Amino acid sequence: MKKINVAIVGYGNLGKAMECALLNNGAFNLVKIFSRRKNLKSPFNTGFELLQNILDYKNKIDVLFLCCGSYDDVLSIAPNLLKDFNTVDSFDTHAKLFNYINIMQKIATQDNKVAICAGGWDPGLLSLMRLIFYSISPNSNMPISFWGKGVSQGHSNAIKNISGVKNALQYTIPNKALIKKCNKKIVKTPTEFEKHFRLCYVSTHKNANKKHIKTQIINMPNYFKGYKTKVKFVSNKTILKKQKKMFHKGLVIKNFSCANGFKARLNFSLDVKSNPGFTAEVLLSLGIACYKLSIKKDYGAYSVFDLPVKYLTTLPLSTLYKKFL
Amino acid sequence: MKKINVAIVGYGNLGKAMECALLNNGAFNLVKIFSRRKNLKSPFNTGFELLQNILDYKNKIDVLFLCCGSYDDVLSIAPNLLKDFNTVDSFDTHAKLFNYINIMQKIATQDNKVAICAGGWDPGLLSLMRLIFYSISPNSNMPISFWGKGVSQGHSNAIKNISGVKNALQYTIPNKALIKKCNKKIVKTPTEFEKHFRLCYVSTHKNANKKHIKTQIINMPNYFKGYKTKVKFVSNKTILKKQKKMFHKGLVIKNFSCANGFKARLNFSLDVKSNPGFTAEVLLSLGIACYKLSIKKDYGAYSVFDLPVKYLTTLPLSTLYKKFL
Repeated sequence: MKKINVAIVGYGNLGKAMECALLNNGAFNLVKIFSRRKNLKSPFNTGFELLQNILDYKNKIDVLFLCCGSYDDVLSIAPNLLKDFNTVDSFDTHAKLFNYINIMQKIATQDNKVAICAGGWDPGLLSLMRLIFYSISPNSNMPISFWGKGVSQGHSNAIKNISGVKNALQYTIPNKALIKKCNKKIVKTPTEFEKHFRLCYVSTHKNANKKHIKTQIINMPNYFKGYKTKVKFVSNKTILKKQKKMFHKGLVIKNFSCANGFKARLNFSLDVKSNPGFTAEVLLSLGIACYKLSIKKDYGAYSVFDLPVKYLTTLPLSTLYKKFL
Repeated sequence: MKKINVAIVGYGNLGKAMECALLNNGAFNLVKIFSRRKNLKSPFNTGFELLQNILDYKNKIDVLFLCCGSYDDVLSIAPNLLKDFNTVDSFDTHAKLFNYINIMQKIATQDNKVAICAGGWDPGLLSLMRLIFYSISPNSNMPISFWGKGVSQGHSNAIKNISGVKNALQYTIPNKALIKKCNKKIVKTPTEFEKHFRLCYVSTHKNANKKHIKTQIINMPNYFKGYKTKVKFVSNKTILKKQKKMFHKGLVIKNFSCANGFKARLNFSLDVKSNPGFTAEVLLSLGIACYKLSIKKDYGAYSVFDLPVKYLTTLPLSTLYKKFL
């Protein structure tokens, strides 16, 4: 296979990790990093280009990795870029996923492009596990997902929006006793409130009403209301230090009875010390799939559900059969 | 979706578990069980038919589940049946897999059929995990598989072939200390000999030379030589009792460094109390895939590597995106 010419859009945590992953893999040739910011520098001397000039590279890039800072960015940028480039993204707003993929599907088929959407570890790897686990004995118990301990950016941002709050970091913490129970026996699907606790580190502006802030956090609908939530007021320095550590965990369990009455348990877990570092590794494999599909002219928008696993690697099928089957 | 008309070939442990699984799932209509044996009876009153008459059912069956007793059977029967039926099998002789799938591929494309080959949990589910784990950071450590505690039919049969042996049962037992180590840190890929122990229960004929039998077992190349092997001579009654319990376990671990230097760990495990019961549940999901592919006229031979996961279920794609992604 020839080297896959790729580029990165966005140079935040994910973009930087993506650069490392691509430079570490001989299958790729990293052409450029595109950003709206000027004067960026890479420790690896990768060339930068302003995003507004990206069309100059239309025929020089096989796959574009969208590593934009905020997920609203993906939503506004991706459909436009897809008209001229094959794309891989990690869009993760669950409520908007279905519509997003439909929009991408329309453009991809119209413009003969491949878009791999919602890659990463959740959505992505954990979604794949949920669907595989569900499909094995579909009339029995549903697979159960747990997340954490790890930072939820959405919940952290929700706290930051409260008046008087300077900075915030929210850890999603799974209920360990419940995980043990789910692994040990067949249980009724637990509620979200039972599955996770929420631990919030908050720094405030001078003279802020901490008691009022705490009340607002604990009662915030959709984010905290109903959950066992702990709020810790700390210095901004403490938060900045914690923000540097981007570990996370994920878990999918299915404990069930087979049709013949015998029990079975499936368990998948991931434990990553760098959320962006691991996400980049997943996106890289999806980048290979994106390139292979574009070569085959199988244009369209794909989620991890729509891809044969053989596309995730540059290895030939005969090797896969011999080494992994 | 209309009900999928299916049939089972073979009525051993797997065939019986397959019957349970299919009758327990509303998506299927179990038309017949085919066997070379006469006068079979099912506790569920499923109808039997001699295998030699199977062509009478050519247009009445959407998918045929091959649950033949021995794996040599699959090799001789499957290519013939594929000429007239879509098939799902759990052929598992790793050394012959690649050739087998190539043979099936030729027939499937010639006769407009779909064959899903080598389904089950290994090859099958564990293969899928190995390839997914490999593809995420492919230049780092290889995924490591462990099996057991559970019976290896191949090893049990190898012992049975020794002169003087009446019956035998071989348990593959994973090295628990090594599993712990592989989960905890990044290790050099261990050898097969380090990964598993072999525990053999053997009953002998009268006057058999037990010492000689033990020596033959321990030194048998490919099967036992090099492994830490324990041989226990027991009564045939003990073995028959143990043979009724068909539990097994499987594990795939990948502990590695992402390109950005941070560690990550992936872990998949299954723990099943009935090997055939669980295998049947996996084959059922592959049966859905087989039917869907045949409807789409995507004829050919498939392994789990060649299938998008969305085909494993009867649920529509919109539901998959909303509930599992």
